[in-house]
Amino acid sequence: MTATSVPRPALSPTRRSTVTRYRDRAATDRAALDDVLDAGLICHIGVLLHGAPVVLPTIYGRVNDTLYLHGSTGAGNMRAALTGEISVAVTLVDAIVYARAAMHFSMNYRSAVIHGRPVEVTDPEERLRALRAIVEHSAPGAWDTVRAPDKKELAATLVLALDLTEASVKTRTGDPSDDPADLNSDAWAGLLPVRQVFGTPVPAPDLVRPCAVPDHVVARTVAPRVSTP
Amino acid sequence: MTATSVPRPALSPTRRSTVTRYRDRAATDRAALDDVLDAGLICHIGVLLHGAPVVLPTIYGRVNDTLYLHGSTGAGNMRAALTGEISVAVTLVDAIVYARAAMHFSMNYRSAVIHGRPVEVTDPEERLRALRAIVEHSAPGAWDTVRAPDKKELAATLVLALDLTEASVKTRTGDPSDDPADLNSDAWAGLLPVRQVFGTPVPAPDLVRPCAVPDHVVARTVAPRVSTP
Repeated sequence: MTATSVPRPALSPTRRSTVTRYRDRAATDRAALDDVLDAGLICHIGVLLHGAPVVLPTIYGRVNDTLYLHGSTGAGNMRAALTGEISVAVTLVDAIVYARAAMHFSMNYRSAVIHGRPVEVTDPEERLRALRAIVEHSAPGAWDTVRAPDKKELAATLVLALDLTEASVKTRTGDPSDDPADLNSDAWAGLLPVRQVFGTPVPAPDLVRPCAVPDHVVARTVAPRVSTP
Repeated sequence: MTATSVPRPALSPTRRSTVTRYRDRAATDRAALDDVLDAGLICHIGVLLHGAPVVLPTIYGRVNDTLYLHGSTGAGNMRAALTGEISVAVTLVDAIVYARAAMHFSMNYRSAVIHGRPVEVTDPEERLRALRAIVEHSAPGAWDTVRAPDKKELAATLVLALDLTEASVKTRTGDPSDDPADLNSDAWAGLLPVRQVFGTPVPAPDLVRPCAVPDHVVARTVAPRVSTP
């Protein structure tokens, strides 16, 4: 997904979406949220299940101001997500920050946390748009080349929409932040960049018509998906 | 951290730590949990805050059967973690699974989810062991080369211990799982491996005594941290 070019609303200033620690790491513009969501591969959702929070990894898609999630209609966690508030986090690690003091070790990262009450998507066209967004998020360019979901598959799939209004974005970039008294240390300090990269595609062994790996897959292996800003 | 060689207890079979979807992806031995935790860089913790789940990324460390987390004593989320149950997830993405049908797109992954009620670590020696484990998890070999936490830093740091007894591990490996009727598709199917790699270390600009990048840092850049199993 690419951010639209129209002005976006500022990020929500509710109590729980207001960054209280390291406020200088908080982003306030909406484009920052889109950037993190579009760069991430998976999210972690938190739902309340039997009175306790449960965190689970899953894939997602974004269309403008809506985050889409999906799951089996038989998945207790997804059904639980429809009964109240959830939280969704997407985190990209950009570097490990080596400092001269143990307490100043850190990570450079981009992190988005969304809060809200998801709704089930029931409109057939929106359901297809949502599933397309989720597949295209994991595998850009693939949707139009594969078989679309049939009635049985759609009936077994729960699609959730979460509004992106209430969210926070936190970012750390740059060098270690050591105390002046530690700068004379003999310890090495600096950044160890972390990147997520794609390897060489591995064709399925049961490809009936062996074909070249398509451009939409090859393109992902050329450049790192996530580069250190 | 390396797993100890003594036999480990099986993973907990409580309701919430029992995998109900894709049961064949569930691991049942304790070493699988240690493997995922030791291979991950960050975790996502879910806490209950003002009645709703909140998911946040953070770093962690493991010592035997205990997961350690830390934060500022002023961080509302960390204090909230001490008031009830939390959930902690560590997820490693190994490949994007391209299928012939939209509904069979998937990821190969290793995922651990822990449930429990953390306790605050107050014993001074255990606090230091925990902080050492957290720093060493992010930066193996670094702790002994840098300044240890002083009294003021320790007083400002909350250290939490979470027992690893109640946890589940879920893994997907291998090829796409397409329906037989779709195998004749023209679509490409296969795996696109995903790896997290370390880049070239960047020394801090204010290194007073410029020195070679130490072995414990260089060693991480030689091989990918996470390889596709």
